Amino acid sequence: MLANREMEQINSEALKALQFERLHKTLEWAYSKSSFYRNKFDESECDPKQFESLTDIEKFPFTLSKELQQVSAMDLLTLPLSGVARISLWEHPQPTVHMYTINDIAANVEMTSRVLTAAGISRASIVGLLGDMADSGLFDAQQALEAIGAAAVPLSTDYERTLKLLEAAHVDTIIGSARRILRLVIQLQASGLEISNFPLHKILCLNETLQNPLKMHLEKRTGTEVYDLFSSAEFGCIGMFFQCEGHVGQHIQQDYFYPEIVAFGGNEVIHEFNCMGELVLTTLTAEAMPLIRYRTGQAVMITDEPCTCGRTFIRIITPMSSF
Amino acid sequence: MLANREMEQINSEALKALQFERLHKTLEWAYSKSSFYRNKFDESECDPKQFESLTDIEKFPFTLSKELQQVSAMDLLTLPLSGVARISLWEHPQPTVHMYTINDIAANVEMTSRVLTAAGISRASIVGLLGDMADSGLFDAQQALEAIGAAAVPLSTDYERTLKLLEAAHVDTIIGSARRILRLVIQLQASGLEISNFPLHKILCLNETLQNPLKMHLEKRTGTEVYDLFSSAEFGCIGMFFQCEGHVGQHIQQDYFYPEIVAFGGNEVIHEFNCMGELVLTTLTAEAMPLIRYRTGQAVMITDEPCTCGRTFIRIITPMSSF
Repeated sequence: MLANREMEQINSEALKALQFERLHKTLEWAYSKSSFYRNKFDESECDPKQFESLTDIEKFPFTLSKELQQVSAMDLLTLPLSGVARISLWEHPQPTVHMYTINDIAANVEMTSRVLTAAGISRASIVGLLGDMADSGLFDAQQALEAIGAAAVPLSTDYERTLKLLEAAHVDTIIGSARRILRLVIQLQASGLEISNFPLHKILCLNETLQNPLKMHLEKRTGTEVYDLFSSAEFGCIGMFFQCEGHVGQHIQQDYFYPEIVAFGGNEVIHEFNCMGELVLTTLTAEAMPLIRYRTGQAVMITDEPCTCGRTFIRIITPMSSF
Repeated sequence: MLANREMEQINSEALKALQFERLHKTLEWAYSKSSFYRNKFDESECDPKQFESLTDIEKFPFTLSKELQQVSAMDLLTLPLSGVARISLWEHPQPTVHMYTINDIAANVEMTSRVLTAAGISRASIVGLLGDMADSGLFDAQQALEAIGAAAVPLSTDYERTLKLLEAAHVDTIIGSARRILRLVIQLQASGLEISNFPLHKILCLNETLQNPLKMHLEKRTGTEVYDLFSSAEFGCIGMFFQCEGHVGQHIQQDYFYPEIVAFGGNEVIHEFNCMGELVLTTLTAEAMPLIRYRTGQAVMITDEPCTCGRTFIRIITPMSSF
């Protein structure tokens, strides 16, 4: 199943045209509205007017994690606080305040709908949301579940409440961080209960990195199918990449993010597919806090080999993935 | 400001017609789809076909709190689990599982939008949501804030995270239970911080009863305006009644609930206004778990005196309220 067939099976030419248009708009918006990017572009003598083809993005400066840590969310913010629809705090890798316009939230919900559908969640699913309310990606998940027609079961950080809901609601899927899910499994065990006796058969694991070393352990321990969900503090969302039923690498939501692979420790862009390098991402629709050429620190390669699922979005593969 | 002028200023005749139509539908729905109500109506020899005027509701049996505790949510549920859009656990007064269709959620969001607007929340507001994600009323609040255009700041049950957000986001309103808000005030104090130094100027307090004895203390301690929000486990929502800027009693959302006042300990319905009795409520739109003539145990009187705010919904007044 696909949540948005038209976009998820878009052809390469149409996608490039869409990316060019959105990237152009993003560069102009960031330059004119974010003091952080105005300074940055001026220092590098970059002008969004010079952006004439997709590869022109390489003329623009990288954004580094340590730069973001030195400025406040207000320096990145492109609009007054009154235009902001949500403010949330992401904890990992370091506490990061993210702000969203209503369109940013809509984009996150659309991306999350695709992610959930690709993981096989349907109208018939009953999905537990495990986490703190401040993990605002779970709000997007809840709205995406509404859109899909699945039932959402907001679980608690309190174990007793969660157990009552697991027993009453026949939860078949859990979305939450690997840490929280493991803690739940252990707490159940301590109460003499086995997670495998619950009707749970799928886990969507929120990870701060693209690798999920706990995945195999979780699959074995819970008897479920585990999908990885990259949960990004800098981008403030959980649906940037997604696994399909093929379980080989993760599709990039290319209408929302423009990916590049850059040589480790260098600035050279690697244009060939299937070469390892650092993943660099640019937002294509973010309004409140656009990010230009953000160096994620993630070691990946990109493959454009056709996927068995029929989606045309290219995939990123990590060294530890099953590829 | 009114969120839904047409409904909040509806005239008495149009309201009665709407209530009759919805009540009729609800009785038929509950009788045909909920095993709990089919048994109950059969035992009392009640048939929804006999419902010919609003006061005919008095022929139907009461639903008691202890009856609900003896049955499972499944006995009340009117549809298969696959038609349910949300399942949540309400903790007070006792753990109660509530299920919602997508229409039930939409009704809760609409009610909550009216409640927030009546409390003066606008596009310019920045509203902290304090609580556990399992308090699913906060999901409704988040969606209502989106509808209004205010910014939502999901706060955490973790104090450190909440403090970071309070400092970064300029939160001017907090929605949460009195207990959690008081705990936050005390935690701030323990860190050498004073709540009155934050830009907070409004609190919407979720209460399990209609009286909020902590209200004056909270107002004085925080220097804010405090609004009461009745948070009901049995009805699974936070927007059944609301205070307007008049702060005298609470308007009843009469298009969603049909109120009666019944003599304490007896079955006699009190038709006169301004007489104390027990509040009895019937849902008018609830699909997943309708409740017929539920005895709330709340001591109130109803007034139909015009309110300074211009809303026509009648108000309930509690013995301890400022009336």
